[in-house]
Amino acid sequence: MKFTDQLIAAIQKKNNSVCVGLDPRFGSLPPAIRDGVDRSDVKAVALAYEMFCKAILDVVADLVPIVKPQSAFFEALGPAGVNALANIVAYAKSKNVLLLMDAKRGDIGSTAEAYAEAYLGETQTGLSSDALTVNPYMGVDTLRPFLDACQSNDRGMFVLVKTSNPGSGHFQDRILDKVSGTNPLTKETLFQAVANEIELLAAATVGESGYGAVGAVVGATYPQQLAMLREQMPHAILLIPGFGAQGGGVEDVKPGFDLNGVGAIVNSSRGIIFAYNNPEFVANEWQQSVEMACKSMTEQLSVSAMKT
Amino acid sequence: MKFTDQLIAAIQKKNNSVCVGLDPRFGSLPPAIRDGVDRSDVKAVALAYEMFCKAILDVVADLVPIVKPQSAFFEALGPAGVNALANIVAYAKSKNVLLLMDAKRGDIGSTAEAYAEAYLGETQTGLSSDALTVNPYMGVDTLRPFLDACQSNDRGMFVLVKTSNPGSGHFQDRILDKVSGTNPLTKETLFQAVANEIELLAAATVGESGYGAVGAVVGATYPQQLAMLREQMPHAILLIPGFGAQGGGVEDVKPGFDLNGVGAIVNSSRGIIFAYNNPEFVANEWQQSVEMACKSMTEQLSVSAMKT
Repeated sequence: MKFTDQLIAAIQKKNNSVCVGLDPRFGSLPPAIRDGVDRSDVKAVALAYEMFCKAILDVVADLVPIVKPQSAFFEALGPAGVNALANIVAYAKSKNVLLLMDAKRGDIGSTAEAYAEAYLGETQTGLSSDALTVNPYMGVDTLRPFLDACQSNDRGMFVLVKTSNPGSGHFQDRILDKVSGTNPLTKETLFQAVANEIELLAAATVGESGYGAVGAVVGATYPQQLAMLREQMPHAILLIPGFGAQGGGVEDVKPGFDLNGVGAIVNSSRGIIFAYNNPEFVANEWQQSVEMACKSMTEQLSVSAMKT
Repeated sequence: MKFTDQLIAAIQKKNNSVCVGLDPRFGSLPPAIRDGVDRSDVKAVALAYEMFCKAILDVVADLVPIVKPQSAFFEALGPAGVNALANIVAYAKSKNVLLLMDAKRGDIGSTAEAYAEAYLGETQTGLSSDALTVNPYMGVDTLRPFLDACQSNDRGMFVLVKTSNPGSGHFQDRILDKVSGTNPLTKETLFQAVANEIELLAAATVGESGYGAVGAVVGATYPQQLAMLREQMPHAILLIPGFGAQGGGVEDVKPGFDLNGVGAIVNSSRGIIFAYNNPEFVANEWQQSVEMACKSMTEQLSVSAMKT
């Protein structure tokens, strides 16, 4: 079954569009995980990250359709961290949840093929995941090898369009001067130009759900652009980061959804995985705080709540 | 000593600006390395990649100033591949050569910090390298954590500007419509806008060599843009891919150099590491072919040959 069909089915079944971000940071780990671990020992820290993420999966795998490990935090530990990441990927596969690798890869020709093999490869071994985030700067030809892997192996990709950081507009919002150049109404921003290409690729790869293999990353911190981009890319599932800690709320992400209350996934990392720190979710065990925070978000982002 | 000062000193000492790309692909490995290795066994392939790259380092470390492993080929093997990559990084450090990690990372805030820690971290352990390639799509604020690590730890970064692939112009060559918009002469392309930012960051971090911690990736396949960008970024060292197999020649890369014949490094991967396949460099041992191909390129790109 195509990735997007699996994803939409999981959203319908679990009745929410929450993506739990697995972003372990040593200083933020619950004391029960962190205590006694020597921070300078990368193997010990990698094991702590693995235990932490597996314990989160134990809580959230049945609650949400998809999880998103952030590769950077594992790479920062070197090979031991990447090994832990692979173990987490395998653990997610044994659970009832999809896994989107957030690695924002991008390169040319045979190098892009190697990245596609690594993260969207035929056999789900090592780091191979259900979907991958991809950077479009190098051009549409560099997206092809990723798309080919998605098509061959029923995987998905989410291409950066309008990111959630304060400075995302620096290049992404620049207005492009079309060659015709006479009608200012035809002008578009860089992120709209990227979105146009994504819509073409998504429309060419639609599954039964009506969505294609190529999705788009659009930050919750830019609700106006989110509404515009939802309209511009009717066949692309949107991955919306920036909810919670970065400032986006329920009303900010709603424009990213379609009339049926699907078509987007909303990521929260810190707000869920480090919920033990939040007075709103005090509990005896840190995993109970994760469960409370996750359930709070799944209720806020239920399929019916996102319908327009 | 700052990375760029180390790099320029190495270029002067070894009298060339060649960067040897370490891009192992199983099907292209010399039979002496490949024979008897089970392609489906990632650990065996990872070990073959490690032996291959170490054997290349044995030949080229004294000949060239810098080498550039391509992370994608190692990631494609999962944790075993990343472990081999870390061993290659450590081996290069024990040799007389700088190492630029080609991983084209880019992300926001604390995630960018984690990537900077992974590849430009204080202690050179795991994957930490002398320099890293970085993708600018997410904005100038996302380059900051990488630059901070470069400044603290005497490392370097090369930001994608104009890449060597056939479709690089798709977004990079789009002309931007400046807000003032009245004088067409003030208009610039996306890659020029990125180059402007890189020049500002490079100028703010110059070392004794006159070059800053931030360099730029500009493909040999676009010699006209290379000349323009050399002028636009006088404080940025250029990393020039696309020489040889991708079609760039000596005359194509020369515009990337300054009046003293330095200020750029020119990468060749396949043309050197798989030279055993080239009738021009036939030898009894594959490493002799590597040596012949490498020496041929270092002569072509000697400091005096690149002077204008």
